[in-house]
Amino acid sequence: MKLTILGCHSATPRWDANPTSQVLEVKGHLFLIDCAEGTQVQLRRFKVKFSRIKHIFISHLHGDHFFGLVGLISTFRLLGREADMHVYGPKGIKEAILLQLKLGKSYTNYNLYFHELVSDAPQVIFEDDKITVTTIPLSHRIYTNGFFFKEKPGERILDIEKARALNVEMSYYRKIKQGLDAITKDGKKISNKEITFDPPVPKSYAYCSDTEYYPQIVPQIKDATLLYHESTFLHDNQDLAVKTKHSTAKEAAQIAKDANVGTLILGHYSGRYGNYELFKAEAQTIFKTTVLAADGKAFEV
Amino acid sequence: MKLTILGCHSATPRWDANPTSQVLEVKGHLFLIDCAEGTQVQLRRFKVKFSRIKHIFISHLHGDHFFGLVGLISTFRLLGREADMHVYGPKGIKEAILLQLKLGKSYTNYNLYFHELVSDAPQVIFEDDKITVTTIPLSHRIYTNGFFFKEKPGERILDIEKARALNVEMSYYRKIKQGLDAITKDGKKISNKEITFDPPVPKSYAYCSDTEYYPQIVPQIKDATLLYHESTFLHDNQDLAVKTKHSTAKEAAQIAKDANVGTLILGHYSGRYGNYELFKAEAQTIFKTTVLAADGKAFEV
Repeated sequence: MKLTILGCHSATPRWDANPTSQVLEVKGHLFLIDCAEGTQVQLRRFKVKFSRIKHIFISHLHGDHFFGLVGLISTFRLLGREADMHVYGPKGIKEAILLQLKLGKSYTNYNLYFHELVSDAPQVIFEDDKITVTTIPLSHRIYTNGFFFKEKPGERILDIEKARALNVEMSYYRKIKQGLDAITKDGKKISNKEITFDPPVPKSYAYCSDTEYYPQIVPQIKDATLLYHESTFLHDNQDLAVKTKHSTAKEAAQIAKDANVGTLILGHYSGRYGNYELFKAEAQTIFKTTVLAADGKAFEV
Repeated sequence: MKLTILGCHSATPRWDANPTSQVLEVKGHLFLIDCAEGTQVQLRRFKVKFSRIKHIFISHLHGDHFFGLVGLISTFRLLGREADMHVYGPKGIKEAILLQLKLGKSYTNYNLYFHELVSDAPQVIFEDDKITVTTIPLSHRIYTNGFFFKEKPGERILDIEKARALNVEMSYYRKIKQGLDAITKDGKKISNKEITFDPPVPKSYAYCSDTEYYPQIVPQIKDATLLYHESTFLHDNQDLAVKTKHSTAKEAAQIAKDANVGTLILGHYSGRYGNYELFKAEAQTIFKTTVLAADGKAFEV
């Protein structure tokens, strides 16, 4: 699982500070999460093979998470894309994109599917045999969802040496990996645990931006391997966070601690701060394994 | 009159190649012409005092001339803009922008006026005592206008030494500058030409992008000081130019020659060419005073 930050700053794009966009590479997928103005340039800059993106998740329709989407969709057309594209985002996203394509007489020559979200409860919006993506309803000034990417548990790992030594029927191997007990060639039953190892713990990534401090999300993101939580402000600007429905670094850390996540990634910094280390220092008073997002930075777990 | 190129490449934005946008500084105005994705970053990068922009002219609604507009309008809101903003562009531009602001519940706190264009004939869309801006109907795949910025003639310049020597009544000075004849203190009439110089020749700038080769524009842009004419292709790709309704460098030069302009600026290069000097060389076989646009380059006349 590899997360690449394309932009992690709030509000307006600047030369050296891109608003929100990320790509998550997991189980053969390349998921794009949010798409601020300039995202397509960032994808090129960091050499992401972006033709592989087939699913785009948009948290909410503020410009700093969304204004790059129509350009990226158009660029795929110009590049001759043929593969289907699925866009998940709040109701209204389809009309906004299609209106602009219509005005330019620039409809895509590939299939473009919109999955418009309206629910205030978590819902599974993508699933295959290896991963599920679920919305994380957040609390911001407009309708907003985070996204929870969770690997499905893999099969049990067969202790092949032991299976051979115990004369287990090879035709049982598949079922043993699925958790069933084994039968030896001479008919003896062997418990599954005796000849298998636990599969790797499924990894998960919770993306939570933008939101005010919203502890309701904790049960849903419990034990996530990786949590990206917005921290627009430091805690001495908590009044601004409350007013604009954003979070402080301390609040993000409290969520991380309560949810017992592996690592907390902070981002969505307000432009008013020069030194982002202050965010990390503040969060680490509550949650030690906190790291800072930066444009172009990748996290691999 | 100072023209700054923010982007002069066609199609998709890339790290080192921005699609179309320009600022024209003339007679106290800062006009923005077209606004591709990334324009607001380019404005910051080239240190344009962009809060001074009060009029934005959009040629057509293809993304590489238009997708940066909603972001720029939003950024003005975030920066606390109070001054009115006027946007001139094809019908549909208002709906596209307002829909996106509505979805983000991010209406501007300054007055935003849309002047939607539908006419196929040139029309004056802005005028004050020093300048007029007229549309230049172009021929592209969708409804497109260029823009002709023309200074109004200044007052005649009084030869103050001569006026004193001839004992011209001071109270006549204003009218003399406006072209009237003079009267001396002892009642003699002196012809205007005898005591005035011609005012500077009014400067003008014709912006023509995107368009196929379209000689119909020649009478309108006759004797322009500066002409920016798109040249998406070299002439050996004329078939592509015809097909996509763009121009070649040679065709742009022919327009410049027939219109007897001062200087031709080429731009809107297709990404297929590595060496833009080829565009200049091709154009100069027909029109000598041809220069190349480049992102960040400024032209002053």
